[in-house]
Amino acid sequence: MLKKKDKYVTAVVGATGAVGGEMISILQERNFPIDKLRLFASERSEGKKLEFRDDEIKVEVLREDVFKGIDIALFSAGAQRSKDFAPFAAKDGCVVIDNSSAWRMDPAIPLVVPEVNPGDLKKHTGIIANPNCSTIQMVVALKPIHDRAKIKRIVVSTYQAVSGTGAKAMDELLEQTKSLLSFQEVKCNVYPHQIAFNCLPQIDVFLDNGYTKEEMKMLNETRKIMGDNSIQVTATTVRVPVFRGHSECVNIEIEKKLTANEVRAILSEAPGVIVFDAPEKGIYPLPLDCAGKDAVYVGRIREDESIPSGLNMWIVSDNLRKGAALNAVQIAEKLIEFAQ
Amino acid sequence: MLKKKDKYVTAVVGATGAVGGEMISILQERNFPIDKLRLFASERSEGKKLEFRDDEIKVEVLREDVFKGIDIALFSAGAQRSKDFAPFAAKDGCVVIDNSSAWRMDPAIPLVVPEVNPGDLKKHTGIIANPNCSTIQMVVALKPIHDRAKIKRIVVSTYQAVSGTGAKAMDELLEQTKSLLSFQEVKCNVYPHQIAFNCLPQIDVFLDNGYTKEEMKMLNETRKIMGDNSIQVTATTVRVPVFRGHSECVNIEIEKKLTANEVRAILSEAPGVIVFDAPEKGIYPLPLDCAGKDAVYVGRIREDESIPSGLNMWIVSDNLRKGAALNAVQIAEKLIEFAQ
Repeated sequence: MLKKKDKYVTAVVGATGAVGGEMISILQERNFPIDKLRLFASERSEGKKLEFRDDEIKVEVLREDVFKGIDIALFSAGAQRSKDFAPFAAKDGCVVIDNSSAWRMDPAIPLVVPEVNPGDLKKHTGIIANPNCSTIQMVVALKPIHDRAKIKRIVVSTYQAVSGTGAKAMDELLEQTKSLLSFQEVKCNVYPHQIAFNCLPQIDVFLDNGYTKEEMKMLNETRKIMGDNSIQVTATTVRVPVFRGHSECVNIEIEKKLTANEVRAILSEAPGVIVFDAPEKGIYPLPLDCAGKDAVYVGRIREDESIPSGLNMWIVSDNLRKGAALNAVQIAEKLIEFAQ
Repeated sequence: MLKKKDKYVTAVVGATGAVGGEMISILQERNFPIDKLRLFASERSEGKKLEFRDDEIKVEVLREDVFKGIDIALFSAGAQRSKDFAPFAAKDGCVVIDNSSAWRMDPAIPLVVPEVNPGDLKKHTGIIANPNCSTIQMVVALKPIHDRAKIKRIVVSTYQAVSGTGAKAMDELLEQTKSLLSFQEVKCNVYPHQIAFNCLPQIDVFLDNGYTKEEMKMLNETRKIMGDNSIQVTATTVRVPVFRGHSECVNIEIEKKLTANEVRAILSEAPGVIVFDAPEKGIYPLPLDCAGKDAVYVGRIREDESIPSGLNMWIVSDNLRKGAALNAVQIAEKLIEFAQ
């Protein structure tokens, strides 16, 4: 358990990445109670300086012995680095909130979305996992419906932004677009195929069952966060040429029938959700509008008459914020709330 | 019924549009047995000349009395023009193959995908409807599965290219992209919101039930083409910043269980379908690769274990070709095959 203090020595591990940068911005915006902020990255970024409040903070090289005296470390430096370093942090009394997939399915590690299962934080033993971006926004929108009508099955297709892959992928989309507009050759370094003006039905690697890891995360993480292994999920995850903001087309089968209006009413009162649903006025969530925002936006709410109790909806959120950095900071805030 | 001839006087109505242009190319590529080709458009395009084989053909203004002596007319000039002019063409003995939505759900008018329901052509009385682009590619891929295992329910999410809206929408995506790259203001004329680097969950207008017309077409047209009103379909149709090639994420519930390998085998022998499905080698259909091609490409075929007998697949095709112009020309070819 985190000890109650006025201010916390806080670290961002992977500070020079797309999510790391967003973590620093969000700590600043939300006036997080920081005693001292320390920034870590790989040797490549050593000596680099990043702005925080009115300071410039030097990026330090991550080592096993750096965590003494750090209260909270937000990790976003990939699964391998997290496996290698998070246990050392935890051993030195630092609470790690890890954005990678390294610990998410470990039964001993809480996997937390503060609006959904904040209580799971109380069981942590030094490491807390931040879920996958596409899962977070989906469960924020679906948990209030599950509580009212019990979700039996979810069929989800995603439209995921390149920033989910990282800063290099954002550059790749930009460079490919520029090349195409100037009739030059397109280079693919980050993705196996051109992403500009294209859709790639692959996110992460393929497993033996034909699904990608990303698709299986949407099943496994949803069950763990919702605390209900009876929920069925089948997912197809697709990368689209959008810089920021994941969209999800979600079809659910529920046990108790709900009308579209009832769902709008339930979600209007749900934490972290904004219902943005007046299609006749051209109002529905767009990734472009949600970029830089904190909420999970839900629109296109419709009854699905192909089954007795079904619903369709369109769920959009900023993958770098609620899908990653913001959720991690919110976990830290909740830990502070629970601190004794 | 079309009378058997060696060559047919053929017309393209809406010759200067995106689909019209594609119709002219396809008639040429496939060496369609044309006696004389006549091209029609609105007064705006009068006097314009278009190339066909080694000729230049003058675009004529569409009038009610132009159809005498024309055997086959491919219409792609919008629903209103089709309602206004197709009956005059039919009265004068011309067979109309209409790409608009004007006649599709008329019980007296066949709605045809040659790979799926060619027999329905025999019932025509002068007008034949070409289905909606997103429906055509889906039924080409699903009909062989339906014949083997009976499809009970389809949940489909689309990723549709801007060329589905027409040539102006392709210009809009290009212009918006250029503006963004040069930090200039983005203008939206065709779509209600920016399409560049964005996803718009709206195609066509909204109906009272919260679905768009495009979404309801995927239910109604699928049932009519498959000749089975028991099939349930729920659709969400989304515009993505892709120039050409519609992608569809399709989940189906079937009566008889099929493995992914069985589905690959069935589809490998299906007319008009190419199975492109070796994800471990990075092989799956991409809209960019399918642009300019004739087939419906199917990949990401997986068993859906969230229900007893379910499947997921990713279906991609060129919306201007199989989704519109090619299907219309194939209908004409089938009519010629049936001609007596």
